[in-house]
Amino acid sequence: MESHLDPSVAGSKRLISAMRHSFFSGGKRIRPQLVFAAAETVRKAKGEDAAGATPPPETYVATAVEAIHTYSLIHDDLPAMDDDDLRRGKPTCHKAFDEATAILAGDALLNLGFQILIDGIVEFGQPMVRAAQTVGAATGIGGMVTGQMLDLLGEESEPTLEKVQLIHKNKTGALLHACVFSGGLVAEPDETQEAALSEFGHSIGLAFQIVDDLLDLEQSTEKLGKRAGKDAEQHKMTYPAVVGVEKSHEMANELTKRAEKALEAFGDSAATLHDLAKLLLRRDH
Amino acid sequence: MESHLDPSVAGSKRLISAMRHSFFSGGKRIRPQLVFAAAETVRKAKGEDAAGATPPPETYVATAVEAIHTYSLIHDDLPAMDDDDLRRGKPTCHKAFDEATAILAGDALLNLGFQILIDGIVEFGQPMVRAAQTVGAATGIGGMVTGQMLDLLGEESEPTLEKVQLIHKNKTGALLHACVFSGGLVAEPDETQEAALSEFGHSIGLAFQIVDDLLDLEQSTEKLGKRAGKDAEQHKMTYPAVVGVEKSHEMANELTKRAEKALEAFGDSAATLHDLAKLLLRRDH
Repeated sequence: MESHLDPSVAGSKRLISAMRHSFFSGGKRIRPQLVFAAAETVRKAKGEDAAGATPPPETYVATAVEAIHTYSLIHDDLPAMDDDDLRRGKPTCHKAFDEATAILAGDALLNLGFQILIDGIVEFGQPMVRAAQTVGAATGIGGMVTGQMLDLLGEESEPTLEKVQLIHKNKTGALLHACVFSGGLVAEPDETQEAALSEFGHSIGLAFQIVDDLLDLEQSTEKLGKRAGKDAEQHKMTYPAVVGVEKSHEMANELTKRAEKALEAFGDSAATLHDLAKLLLRRDH
Repeated sequence: MESHLDPSVAGSKRLISAMRHSFFSGGKRIRPQLVFAAAETVRKAKGEDAAGATPPPETYVATAVEAIHTYSLIHDDLPAMDDDDLRRGKPTCHKAFDEATAILAGDALLNLGFQILIDGIVEFGQPMVRAAQTVGAATGIGGMVTGQMLDLLGEESEPTLEKVQLIHKNKTGALLHACVFSGGLVAEPDETQEAALSEFGHSIGLAFQIVDDLLDLEQSTEKLGKRAGKDAEQHKMTYPAVVGVEKSHEMANELTKRAEKALEAFGDSAATLHDLAKLLLRRDH
């Protein structure tokens, strides 16, 4: 990654500062953790100790998805989108710099994410090609970008369970699923293992967003590091808004159980993925 | 490309309309033309009639660069950037839709460009990997995005030839060079041919932008399909502003000659690239 970021190139300095501001802002790194845990799980199940290469292929996937995730936060926070001033307890990118710089820093991070995936293909060939396809499909028009569009359009229409599921599946679920699935792919799983990872990724992706909706309702701005209570204010479609708080907690529990059940295919090898599933359910920010 | 754009997926409809609005707006398709001409040149020089596959690898590169170019226009036209209402004689994306949709349509087109490059890697392997690396390096922090940042920062500082060259090299030159170079790469040129394409690409990239600066000064809004005279209004750093109109014409001529000279390595095989070089110099919009 650093090889693509040379601040001595005149003019890229401001842009790199803005990218770093958002990338190194104390995020939880949930997506990279899922990538690494999925790769570890497949390797352990295959009886391999560790990846043969340093850095291993999952490092490319993990860095790329975090860069792409960071770009999506920067753009979602823009005045024309969710208009947020605070993110991870710090001023959002367009507040710390300006709107044009934030748009360009987001663009550069999305571009960088794909550059890193292509670097990974150069190093590792075929398994990385599938991982890159998986990430690309999840972040574009078939996933995250469409999710954000739906989220914005949703502010103007009547909430239903079907709509809220569609938004969340695209906006957050697709990338979380891609983290698990592509992280596993680079360790070359068999078909049963692929299916198990896919099931785990879908369930955990949805559970994650339900918990996110609940945190927005139940936690303070200070704890969250971003403005709390804004979903209701902006008439966002959320699980609590559609099925109520209690039922939302139940659904998150249920999905986490389903996710953990999918891991049975890996036996003891999936310990880290089990830990992450529990952590995501019980997090307080 | 179409396989990634399914408007029946609920919610992607508006976004796909916005992407199509800008992608199919009667652009000159200069970048795809350069990609195809470069691939043709290398193949003819190697005594090959045509690519073995349908579609050939250059189709992936050409579609990807046009998608990425289109995203850059959508974002550059945004109110926080150059704030333009007119592009190719039509309302800009944020005017035809809204700002949020335009930001997301741009994001989706950038993502789509890389998805298409990765699709190309799946089909054609190694030569496409280098082409994808070339495009990624030219469009990100090492090229186009930095160029746009410099262009915006340039509005506030004293114009010099050094600064205007740096802006243009990054903002427009890097991608035009990448079109020629990556288009050639997929036809697997030898080292001499690679060097010749690179020299042609650099010279033509710079000549293109000088002509663009001159057109903004000398042509009408009607002819250009975008607001004429805005460079001076926005205190943009341009060649005419720094070296004057006459000297700018001379430089564009000189660079086009240098570009055509680089093509000597290909003999008669480079006819289409010669035609394009002349066309870019003499265009009136």
